[in-house]
Amino acid sequence: MTSKTVAIVLFADVLMLDVAGPIEVFSVANRYLPESEHYRIVTLGADSLSVRASNGIVLQADQLALEAPVAYDTLLVPGGPGAYNDRHPHLYGWLRDAAQASRRHGAICTGAFILGEAGLLDGHRVTTHWHYLDRFAKRFPKAQLESDQLFTKDGNLHSSGGVTAGIDLALSMLADDHGKKLALDVAKVLLVVIKRQGGQAQFSPLLPPTAQGATPLDRVQQYVLENIQEPFTVELLAEFAAMSVRNFARVFTRELQMTPMEFVLNARVDHARSLLESTDLPLKTVAFRSGFGSTRHMRQMFDKRLGLTPVQYRHQFG
Amino acid sequence: MTSKTVAIVLFADVLMLDVAGPIEVFSVANRYLPESEHYRIVTLGADSLSVRASNGIVLQADQLALEAPVAYDTLLVPGGPGAYNDRHPHLYGWLRDAAQASRRHGAICTGAFILGEAGLLDGHRVTTHWHYLDRFAKRFPKAQLESDQLFTKDGNLHSSGGVTAGIDLALSMLADDHGKKLALDVAKVLLVVIKRQGGQAQFSPLLPPTAQGATPLDRVQQYVLENIQEPFTVELLAEFAAMSVRNFARVFTRELQMTPMEFVLNARVDHARSLLESTDLPLKTVAFRSGFGSTRHMRQMFDKRLGLTPVQYRHQFG
Repeated sequence: MTSKTVAIVLFADVLMLDVAGPIEVFSVANRYLPESEHYRIVTLGADSLSVRASNGIVLQADQLALEAPVAYDTLLVPGGPGAYNDRHPHLYGWLRDAAQASRRHGAICTGAFILGEAGLLDGHRVTTHWHYLDRFAKRFPKAQLESDQLFTKDGNLHSSGGVTAGIDLALSMLADDHGKKLALDVAKVLLVVIKRQGGQAQFSPLLPPTAQGATPLDRVQQYVLENIQEPFTVELLAEFAAMSVRNFARVFTRELQMTPMEFVLNARVDHARSLLESTDLPLKTVAFRSGFGSTRHMRQMFDKRLGLTPVQYRHQFG
Repeated sequence: MTSKTVAIVLFADVLMLDVAGPIEVFSVANRYLPESEHYRIVTLGADSLSVRASNGIVLQADQLALEAPVAYDTLLVPGGPGAYNDRHPHLYGWLRDAAQASRRHGAICTGAFILGEAGLLDGHRVTTHWHYLDRFAKRFPKAQLESDQLFTKDGNLHSSGGVTAGIDLALSMLADDHGKKLALDVAKVLLVVIKRQGGQAQFSPLLPPTAQGATPLDRVQQYVLENIQEPFTVELLAEFAAMSVRNFARVFTRELQMTPMEFVLNARVDHARSLLESTDLPLKTVAFRSGFGSTRHMRQMFDKRLGLTPVQYRHQFG
């Protein structure tokens, strides 16, 4: 086993930025390390040596994965459109061997789907791109999915959120290997911060889109979304659905994996975010139009759900 | 001329993340655009079709630049170790034609050196990777170098700071083409914010390393750095250099491109940053040990030079 080899798997429709981000962290780190401690980068083609990424650019792998060794210092599986349709069945046995033989292994973004199909995630804490959280949870119910983390570590399994979170993950691996100072130097070269403000949730809507009025529950959600500035109680919503409060709360929570009042609060936060992104309205007006009783209440909910204040959110996305 | 072709030049020792970042912005935007408005990605090899990036990964270009058309919607030149040693003389004529014929052209990171060698930057506002600012200013004295910007736009010439700032640049181009909403959607998919806190200066030291005591000016700088908690006046420093105040200030400013007191303040900020990165000391202690009279003064200087508060700086880099 070469002690410092970072291997990354390439496949058709891989997201090139999922590959380039973390690999550049190890590559730039070499500028600061004595040659004996350099990371050696190896690319492994899942199906062929020539791989077209989803952005159209063709990458050339060093070896076919199935013909390559299984033991690495770090084995990484990137994501992309080619990652999440169970397209790599011939690779799963090799991946299980490699995860076992390597010092650590990790997934970037939707690369977690490939590790999941290989059976490597059951019982483990893991994250993936925010856009695919629901799909992931349904496909791999035994994985312990963390939705707000930029990256997670569970034993020698690492995973990261969407795309550029792979850079955050690789920087944390680098800090584990060589201390924070080196990770900070590399981060500054790449022009990224070493600790971001807020987690992955700030990039995703808290609520999935609602279906058009098919069921009483859909109609309740739409009513809330269309009258978001109003106060709501679970009693009022149950009445609107023509159900008993107890039954309504039970059915709603089962169907949407959140209580009716969590739904209302998430809808308020999402509405406020969209106003902060698209308008210069004062915070007080944003809070009022989103149905928060006060800017203080809005701020509390932002902090709890996004790890950011409304002002920080507006600064970053407005 | 194909109206929506994004062409990017590939060369040996290109930094792959300089390529992947901006290209992914246009590629992910296609998911949201009708097919008729899709960006088409074209890769142009500077010397050969097969190009090894500085991280060791091999990219395959679609065409040789010199055999390709010159007119694109967007022409991008990335940076990397292969960009800044005037290695591409055969390309400069083609680049001048292409910059003329394309709707807009831009450089990522040290890609600005290639545009500079091609004579495309004289009289234009431009930025490059913070680490190469001095070198760039000496090589291209007629370019108007902006040091703190993440990206700049001057007519149809665009440029960006180090590595991931290419993503910020491409998002701004996307917003120009299709509005802010789409740029925001793409940013969220890539897990980046659309407006970062602070500019490029937060990633770079304000002062270059000082030489070891060769001249009176070197000794003055070292004295300041070693006694940074002390108060300094220009009179005191001139005395230390055994020069008249007027002559000292004139020579110092000419040699270092900053006045003696600017040097002192930059040194205080750099010292405070290093304490914020590496310790949990209270702000008051950090200010005191860096020679700021108060946390308020420290905060003002951080804001002015980095566009961040000391607390934000510690959060991002600490």
